[in-house]
Amino acid sequence: MISRSVFGDTVEYTLDEQIEQQRLKDFVAKGGTRPVVVVQGLGFVGTAMVAALAMARDTAGAPRYTVIGVDLSDEANYWKIDRVQRGLPPVVSTDDSLTAAYQCALEQKNLTATYSPDAYQYADIVVVDIHLDILKEERGLPERYSFTYDSYLNALRIVAERIQEHTLVLIETTVPPGTTEKVVRPLFEEIFTQRGLNPERLCLAHSYERVMPGKEYLLSITRFFRVFSGINEHSKAKTREFLESFIEVKEFPLTELHSTTASEMAKVLENSFRAANIAFMQEWTEFAQHAGVNLFEVVQAIRVRPTHRNIMAPGLGVGGYCLTKDSLLADWAYQNLFHANDHLTMSLRSIGINDTMPRFTFDLLKTVVPTLYSRRVTILGVSYLNDVADTRYSPTELLYTLCQREGATLILHDPLVQYWVEQDCSVETSLENLALQEHDIVILAVRHSDYLQLQAADIMRYLPGVRVVVDTMNIISETTAHDLRVHGITVVGVGKGHWL
Amino acid sequence: MISRSVFGDTVEYTLDEQIEQQRLKDFVAKGGTRPVVVVQGLGFVGTAMVAALAMARDTAGAPRYTVIGVDLSDEANYWKIDRVQRGLPPVVSTDDSLTAAYQCALEQKNLTATYSPDAYQYADIVVVDIHLDILKEERGLPERYSFTYDSYLNALRIVAERIQEHTLVLIETTVPPGTTEKVVRPLFEEIFTQRGLNPERLCLAHSYERVMPGKEYLLSITRFFRVFSGINEHSKAKTREFLESFIEVKEFPLTELHSTTASEMAKVLENSFRAANIAFMQEWTEFAQHAGVNLFEVVQAIRVRPTHRNIMAPGLGVGGYCLTKDSLLADWAYQNLFHANDHLTMSLRSIGINDTMPRFTFDLLKTVVPTLYSRRVTILGVSYLNDVADTRYSPTELLYTLCQREGATLILHDPLVQYWVEQDCSVETSLENLALQEHDIVILAVRHSDYLQLQAADIMRYLPGVRVVVDTMNIISETTAHDLRVHGITVVGVGKGHWL
Repeated sequence: MISRSVFGDTVEYTLDEQIEQQRLKDFVAKGGTRPVVVVQGLGFVGTAMVAALAMARDTAGAPRYTVIGVDLSDEANYWKIDRVQRGLPPVVSTDDSLTAAYQCALEQKNLTATYSPDAYQYADIVVVDIHLDILKEERGLPERYSFTYDSYLNALRIVAERIQEHTLVLIETTVPPGTTEKVVRPLFEEIFTQRGLNPERLCLAHSYERVMPGKEYLLSITRFFRVFSGINEHSKAKTREFLESFIEVKEFPLTELHSTTASEMAKVLENSFRAANIAFMQEWTEFAQHAGVNLFEVVQAIRVRPTHRNIMAPGLGVGGYCLTKDSLLADWAYQNLFHANDHLTMSLRSIGINDTMPRFTFDLLKTVVPTLYSRRVTILGVSYLNDVADTRYSPTELLYTLCQREGATLILHDPLVQYWVEQDCSVETSLENLALQEHDIVILAVRHSDYLQLQAADIMRYLPGVRVVVDTMNIISETTAHDLRVHGITVVGVGKGHWL
Repeated sequence: MISRSVFGDTVEYTLDEQIEQQRLKDFVAKGGTRPVVVVQGLGFVGTAMVAALAMARDTAGAPRYTVIGVDLSDEANYWKIDRVQRGLPPVVSTDDSLTAAYQCALEQKNLTATYSPDAYQYADIVVVDIHLDILKEERGLPERYSFTYDSYLNALRIVAERIQEHTLVLIETTVPPGTTEKVVRPLFEEIFTQRGLNPERLCLAHSYERVMPGKEYLLSITRFFRVFSGINEHSKAKTREFLESFIEVKEFPLTELHSTTASEMAKVLENSFRAANIAFMQEWTEFAQHAGVNLFEVVQAIRVRPTHRNIMAPGLGVGGYCLTKDSLLADWAYQNLFHANDHLTMSLRSIGINDTMPRFTFDLLKTVVPTLYSRRVTILGVSYLNDVADTRYSPTELLYTLCQREGATLILHDPLVQYWVEQDCSVETSLENLALQEHDIVILAVRHSDYLQLQAADIMRYLPGVRVVVDTMNIISETTAHDLRVHGITVVGVGKGHWL
């Protein structure tokens, strides 16, 4: 047995493969004839998929699947396995129904988690929810990226070497379009042939989730539209049957596309669409600032048109795992899987614009406070999205770095983030505690519900000494801004030209 | 009296200003105390505005306004005045309710049209619906444009020199943001001062229509959302009252913005948003073509998401008066009215991409027919939009030019266009007549209803000899494509990669 400390708890587990193999065998046996689904990767998507699958019911109302979550046994990941075993979701969430699902699965005993690759041999279905990263080499120059399938294919090889001939492998990873057909399929077919299995019977498909963090994390799997395709007709049919078993398809019908490449393209295209529309607004934000126009009002006026409802509002920047990189995966595929002599220029440029967008907030601050040296700058909001604890690629990061480089003293607050992994620093979660310190400048960086309610009196109470307020996302009301100004506090807002 | 031939009719009119002045005076007098609205410019917007205003009713159900349309007396414009006098809309339209409105106005005698600037002296309200053009110097290089206010301000000067102090001047022209405040207002104030009127009482406002050609041309004025603002509170109040008198504001509430610059920006921003989203799809169309993906299917799958409903489909290109140039007006203002050192880069690039987009269809054709010399190429669709006769900046133009340059023999068809003004050539309107000629290649360029119904047998009957069909906008069904292929006809489609 090995003991490790996870979030202050001591976790004990065995790395004895034989013991773990026996445990898995017994676990599957107890499920009887129930189909076995193995989810590879207990990250953000895997966590919700495991919950949805563990909760799926057959026509008699009994658990439909035996579910096994697989992740690595290393220090960075083992705690996820441990949490599942204790009836807790691997990803901490504000969604109570997700937590309830893990508790319920513990009681109904149809869910376990393991590091053992043995799991795959029992699988009727393997859902691949591991990441495929692409590395940006320089912020603002998105065409400089480096990409390799190496670790991804190593993980898939482990699956291919163990699954049965009939097993459906459903890839949910966001991949360069063409990956399933041109990269994964040949790998599986080769290993099937080596193993004496019939490669023509391979069941391989791609479907992408549209998981959203927040209060409806689990519902974003079970009650939302899905797109899928398979490498052949039986893969498509099996995938449809599988998706229908845990998604409310009557209200949210499935879309079957003609090829896995189409399904993969749909995913990166929809995220690129969103990213491009955010980038598009940045030049108009700068225009509005020059022209003294409140762009939020303008955007509101435009959104009444159904054809223009998706126009984005100004803001600090873009974060999260998808919008910040999916266009790069597409561009890589365009060059390397389909040998184009061209780039997805506009999509790439958009990533570059979005990655450097927080500079605009910084520049705006500097128009009212020319030197930040030794100023106390308090940033309200560290996560990349409102009311979500996720800090991956948060735009606050660049803002923080820029202020720090100029010699400012930073104070961070976020009601949902205690510890900022990416910056390796702690974050204040209580507004009351902020009041114990002195502040010069406050930057409202995220539209957390807690911030939307702040009135002038609150801001002055929680942030004693504050002289300048920078609002990056129309967080405080015009009344609040007015009241702050009455008290001699300077208020500027991104996209709120008339406040300058 | 002068006689001129208009569309084969002989139009007689007087250029004797005195006679026309007396006629106007009598006409206004007959309206009694009814407010007088003068619409400057009987083009595309003016035509619909005149109809909406002539049909507006007071609480007793009587005509609310005396309406006078003004346009120039030159050969290019006089026929518009003549048509109004005969109870016909100046812009020919497929909208029956528009035609009916002009007929009704003739009968109820509350509408006239004139070339005489005297009209403005009677106006309680002047609606400015004249164009403000910006000239592109080179296709695909949108940053090279030339712009001047000269003729626009000359036309406005005529108004300023004649209106009364209380007259509301409502600008509906799409202008560079800042125009009303920084250019028009000073002009009016200067002329008011010269005329001994109080410039502080000037009523000046901006509001933009969202007129759409087609069957609901008039309804797109009276039953759609409006945005407006004025240079001061009384201008705003008067504009609101005016707009409420002919727009169904209960269902389509007005949006009042804080400044005329905001209203002007909203207009060019919403058109730039649309143009940028079309341009964005072009690189994905090229990607899909390389990757063998049917992008129309993918777009359909993505549009189910409310946040992605506005994603555009692939196509031939972009035409019309607004989407092809509004970003340039914005960019001009950014530099020249607000002295930015930057361009609206993404918005401008989008215009460039859209203007050259038809090259992609041409290149696609060349992948299956490498040389077009002496080939008979039939283009179905000349207008810029489906089921609309408008040919302004139609993307068919570049396609036509490219084919012609390579020595192809062009045949043009459009059910709604008899004569293509921009290319100075006649267009076949009957499919039956096409059957009298021989064809090699057909390009489906516009999603006219007539074309959507075409089946393989129809295509072969109307286009005898055709060997290649190029579908630019998902116009023919997969079944039709399949049936054509069975008959040895090659079918390729923009954004339909798997057909290649």
